Amino acid sequence: MSQQQFSSALLENAVHEFSKLPGIGRKTALRLVLHLLKQPENDVDIFGNSLIRLRKEIIYCKVCHNISDTEVCQICANPDRETETVCVVENIKDVMSIENTQQYKGLYHVLGGVISPMDGIGPSDLEIESLVNRVKTENIKEVILALSTTMEGDTTNFFIFRKLAPSNVKITTIARGVAIGDELEYADEITLGRSILHRVEFSNSFK
Amino acid sequence: MSQQQFSSALLENAVHEFSKLPGIGRKTALRLVLHLLKQPENDVDIFGNSLIRLRKEIIYCKVCHNISDTEVCQICANPDRETETVCVVENIKDVMSIENTQQYKGLYHVLGGVISPMDGIGPSDLEIESLVNRVKTENIKEVILALSTTMEGDTTNFFIFRKLAPSNVKITTIARGVAIGDELEYADEITLGRSILHRVEFSNSFK
Repeated sequence: MSQQQFSSALLENAVHEFSKLPGIGRKTALRLVLHLLKQPENDVDIFGNSLIRLRKEIIYCKVCHNISDTEVCQICANPDRETETVCVVENIKDVMSIENTQQYKGLYHVLGGVISPMDGIGPSDLEIESLVNRVKTENIKEVILALSTTMEGDTTNFFIFRKLAPSNVKITTIARGVAIGDELEYADEITLGRSILHRVEFSNSFK
Repeated sequence: MSQQQFSSALLENAVHEFSKLPGIGRKTALRLVLHLLKQPENDVDIFGNSLIRLRKEIIYCKVCHNISDTEVCQICANPDRETETVCVVENIKDVMSIENTQQYKGLYHVLGGVISPMDGIGPSDLEIESLVNRVKTENIKEVILALSTTMEGDTTNFFIFRKLAPSNVKITTIARGVAIGDELEYADEITLGRSILHRVEFSNSFK
């Protein structure tokens, strides 16, 4: 397909743009573009403009750096949230995942990634300084680290841990263990090991 | 994910629009949208506008109904093509596939689908009448039917065959058989049966 000639420069262009998206090759791009060609002109207009507007008008919350339509996001602005707890996550998808559980009533802090020298991402590229400032200036009692358990995530966890050490804030991390519904024999050893190490009182396990 | 609340209406909107595309669910849509958010504003502008422009400005060749930037497409306008042969295909993807082989020097006729009463597509929804007109008015010696071998494709083939019968044009269909590189034991019976029935002279098989 790579050598494929299109009979239209407009088509070629649209397919080329679509195939820049992650996980979308030229064949899929062509399929999507041909689908769009069959849709009413107005629908394609709405689709294209929704993307252009999103990129142009999106705001990141100035407090937690979550995606937002307003200067301060809905979560930070919500008076019912517990402002003494801040959960540190890598990206806005993690915020969505945790919000979905409906188990967390505190605030968030979106780092925008993890420290990864291989990808050229250092601490200054992430929202770590602003987290330290929040802990200093806001009345935060607990910081929950919810980064991924990769080497990069662990490095970032440790970096934040050291940065926050002087402030005496309580620093916790989300529980790791065998997922509910998973069978023990299929759990990896590290996860299962941690599950045993961090076992909880049976009477607490229903909460 | 279906119950997921987004912290931004702009984001919600873009994800909703993306997930209308075939084969793209809400999770993939969100991933693509978040990718776009990380791209330079200008790139997203170009992407969105390439789709809007495509839908707005695309032209279908008035001769063969292939996609085109001009009134008559590059293939129909090319004086080096053999104008006495017309290959009938379902859609523009088929044109591209055949062009890719570089084995065909004739012209095309894009039907825009096949007759499918289940989907409410009748002969009048397809470019069959215009094909009959081309055969009447142009100096066409051979019509090659290259539709898919489904019941709908066969129905359409037969419909076209009957429509063109009075014109005495030669009507052929592309060869079906075991694909090159395929092993016989994995070929389906109908294909293998046709391969044997329509066997060719060994001395011709290298052409």
